[in-house]
Amino acid sequence: MASMTLGQLAARFGLAVQGDPDTVIDRVATLQRAGQGAISFLANSKYTADLKTTAASAVILEPAATRYWSAAALLTDNPYAAYARIASFLHPAPSVGAGVHPSAVIDASARIAPSAHVGPLAVVGAGAQLGQRVVVGAGCVVGAGVSIGADSQLMARVTIYHSVILGERCVVHSGAVIGADGFGIAKDTDGWVKVPQLGSVIIGNDVEIGANTTIDRGAVDDTVIEDDVKLDNQIQIGHNVRIGAHTAMAACVGVSGSTTIGRHCLIAGAVGIVGHLKIADHVVVLGQSMVSRSLTEAGVYASGVPVSEAGDWRRTVARLRHLDDLFDRVRDLERLNTLTGMEKT
Amino acid sequence: MASMTLGQLAARFGLAVQGDPDTVIDRVATLQRAGQGAISFLANSKYTADLKTTAASAVILEPAATRYWSAAALLTDNPYAAYARIASFLHPAPSVGAGVHPSAVIDASARIAPSAHVGPLAVVGAGAQLGQRVVVGAGCVVGAGVSIGADSQLMARVTIYHSVILGERCVVHSGAVIGADGFGIAKDTDGWVKVPQLGSVIIGNDVEIGANTTIDRGAVDDTVIEDDVKLDNQIQIGHNVRIGAHTAMAACVGVSGSTTIGRHCLIAGAVGIVGHLKIADHVVVLGQSMVSRSLTEAGVYASGVPVSEAGDWRRTVARLRHLDDLFDRVRDLERLNTLTGMEKT
Amino acid sequence: MASMTLGQLAARFGLAVQGDPDTVIDRVATLQRAGQGAISFLANSKYTADLKTTAASAVILEPAATRYWSAAALLTDNPYAAYARIASFLHPAPSVGAGVHPSAVIDASARIAPSAHVGPLAVVGAGAQLGQRVVVGAGCVVGAGVSIGADSQLMARVTIYHSVILGERCVVHSGAVIGADGFGIAKDTDGWVKVPQLGSVIIGNDVEIGANTTIDRGAVDDTVIEDDVKLDNQIQIGHNVRIGAHTAMAACVGVSGSTTIGRHCLIAGAVGIVGHLKIADHVVVLGQSMVSRSLTEAGVYASGVPVSEAGDWRRTVARLRHLDDLFDRVRDLERLNTLTGMEKT
Repeated sequence: MASMTLGQLAARFGLAVQGDPDTVIDRVATLQRAGQGAISFLANSKYTADLKTTAASAVILEPAATRYWSAAALLTDNPYAAYARIASFLHPAPSVGAGVHPSAVIDASARIAPSAHVGPLAVVGAGAQLGQRVVVGAGCVVGAGVSIGADSQLMARVTIYHSVILGERCVVHSGAVIGADGFGIAKDTDGWVKVPQLGSVIIGNDVEIGANTTIDRGAVDDTVIEDDVKLDNQIQIGHNVRIGAHTAMAACVGVSGSTTIGRHCLIAGAVGIVGHLKIADHVVVLGQSMVSRSLTEAGVYASGVPVSEAGDWRRTVARLRHLDDLFDRVRDLERLNTLTGMEKT
Repeated sequence: MASMTLGQLAARFGLAVQGDPDTVIDRVATLQRAGQGAISFLANSKYTADLKTTAASAVILEPAATRYWSAAALLTDNPYAAYARIASFLHPAPSVGAGVHPSAVIDASARIAPSAHVGPLAVVGAGAQLGQRVVVGAGCVVGAGVSIGADSQLMARVTIYHSVILGERCVVHSGAVIGADGFGIAKDTDGWVKVPQLGSVIIGNDVEIGANTTIDRGAVDDTVIEDDVKLDNQIQIGHNVRIGAHTAMAACVGVSGSTTIGRHCLIAGAVGIVGHLKIADHVVVLGQSMVSRSLTEAGVYASGVPVSEAGDWRRTVARLRHLDDLFDRVRDLERLNTLTGMEKT
Repeated sequence: MASMTLGQLAARFGLAVQGDPDTVIDRVATLQRAGQGAISFLANSKYTADLKTTAASAVILEPAATRYWSAAALLTDNPYAAYARIASFLHPAPSVGAGVHPSAVIDASARIAPSAHVGPLAVVGAGAQLGQRVVVGAGCVVGAGVSIGADSQLMARVTIYHSVILGERCVVHSGAVIGADGFGIAKDTDGWVKVPQLGSVIIGNDVEIGANTTIDRGAVDDTVIEDDVKLDNQIQIGHNVRIGAHTAMAACVGVSGSTTIGRHCLIAGAVGIVGHLKIADHVVVLGQSMVSRSLTEAGVYASGVPVSEAGDWRRTVARLRHLDDLFDRVRDLERLNTLTGMEKT
């Protein structure tokens, strides 16, 4: 843990200071839990009231929020990004040394940079390449011919199938599986025929992949994840999907095969996206929605239904089954009124 | 497998006997498959008819159900709990001996109780502590500084990130990942900035965690799972979630970050819960619902839509798009009737 | 990679030839990416336009589609199945040699066929049986008493709990967990009592199981997956489920305990199926639907709601809460019309 004055932090991260620049900061904390030496942040107006009671030594906030906070502060239009950088600076991840653990099983033809780290009981296959400062965590399996770019990190127990290419500065969390066969089956008279999955997965730079997320290899061409895509946990990406740069997906999203998603999209939790669609750039899909047609315009889309009290909901569902009929009944009433001269005023 | 008379079982578990207390019982079975020596149970009225044909030597049931069953029985107001205890007694899990498998990789600074078991090819990191009779299954990765309380059991291939605390008598199933980074990303002008996840995960006693379930570490403060919480498979728990004691969740539930769930809640399969909410104690949420607001009252909530025949459903969906319009049309009809003097009788 | 003439492929796979039978084929490709030597296929009419621009040396298609393509072709009523077979033939999977990697931990009582392959750092438990040509990938854990039939393949990091039986020619992808405890808990006055899960999982022949899919062991009787069932990634199968032969499920489906699904069913992505139901043969359930009652008739079922623009959807949801009331208002209008003599014409 580092320690710095508020003024030093402001200078390093290009922020404006409010209050005493000599305030000493040695850690980050939430407004609720902060104490002497802690810097906190306000990025969600839900938590404005916590400014009244916080014991933080300083707060990172928007200039407009200083009306709620007159003590030491760092001012920025983007308090959350500033907080992220300051938190990483004050709490650097412990570095793992270079070297291959003696219990790891490394194919003789793998090429591992001297500065790379391979943890205990990891497996690295034939012809695999690990770039400078790559970290392969304990128990990972890196398949034959896989290429991992500099500074990328596989946490423990990640699986990468053969021939997958991963860019630089990526992070892959435990349990993720990259490059398993896509779901390719052809119906035949006496059952299913497996369609071999001959493509691979190409992942750009600065991609983060969450725990137990799965990204399937392409059927013929490749599945592609562009730069700076951020995938949360338990996401399923089907074969031949392409996800555009800077798109982020929350947990439990499923994307079916051959769908192309644009850049800068935000896909909320548990959304399902059908196969063979095209989603434009800057599309936002709200939680638990089903995207079953291409979305050609940027915008916000939804189909999730918020909970009601269960008895009310049961009545709604029962009525829903007669909705088509209700439209006909209303049309009949309208016709009747027209017939009897009761036109709209 | 043990063997006992019905009377001995009744005495041990505090139950009433119907019929011959000398009936010998050596195993449990379903009503459909039971035979000589088997005890079965009736806890779901769907299966009452099976009492007519079962070959069970005895049945555990509610006193009221004896009108359907006059043969040997154990009587209790809670047949399912009694069955659970008797089944565990008659079919004890095979015990695994103490000791560390020679293929496991144990950091020299880890503290492992002499009665603990560490399976083949497991990894235990620096400073980790395993309590009395803890079982770490084959291929698990237990991170640095993790603490696991007495009698807890990790099945094969569980991953626990650094600093996580797990209580006593917990069970964690294969593929579960506890303590991966929460999904913290801050939007900046030229892409995403990673928000370091500095908190941990604190898990109470008697918690069960299903296969491939993921529980993320907190962003600053900790993610907390209280005592006796039961999580099924493939559940995703976001950073800084708190789940109250005795709450149970069925498979495929997703809970977004910073949501607090009360005690004694029941969350059915595939429910999604949005972030930053508060769910009261004794809330029940039915399957596939979306909880997008805080639920401040105990009760039963739902928003799942049951299937219809696809053609019918297609018509309903088409009508749904004009629902707002239909309300306006009905209001117009009502106004027209009022204007022409046709008021409600 | 093999190389063959079109005529040889036609003879081998029983297909009709259009154009020059001496056309040389050495690989498969998509219509968009194909070049000299590649054979492509047309199985989805969405891609018919690609026939105009493809550089494929030949295309596999239906006889009716030859009006769009007059060059070299293989003709069949089922181009996708023919493509699957030809692709597997032209691009055979690299064979893994027989033998047990010295880093694997094999119990002395396991029986491993001489032609089987066990990869690095895999664990095979007491009494397990691996048939002829079985492949156990790196880092797999095969529990005690497991039986795996001839020619089945576990990719890296699969977990199979004790006593599970897997048939012949199965493929199980990384991260899959077969045989973890079902979610059996009984409510008691002071918390939950665990219900021991005493059954196993019985899996037929030719079953494929996707990455990070979980199949729970039965509570008393077994969970059963019949022959030629195809499960995509991230699927959850509860205890005592039975899935009929030839049924296929797309990713992220959840099936609750004790439900029986028929043969030849197709379950689309993210469908949830409630417990204790019976689903008939030849049922198709469309994406993100909730099956909460038994489906006794073959047919197509749905309840997924496609996305709208978020503002429109918000209005629809608000109206939905008053749907019950709207039905009452329409009934009142109808009564009023009847009272005033304005009957339907």
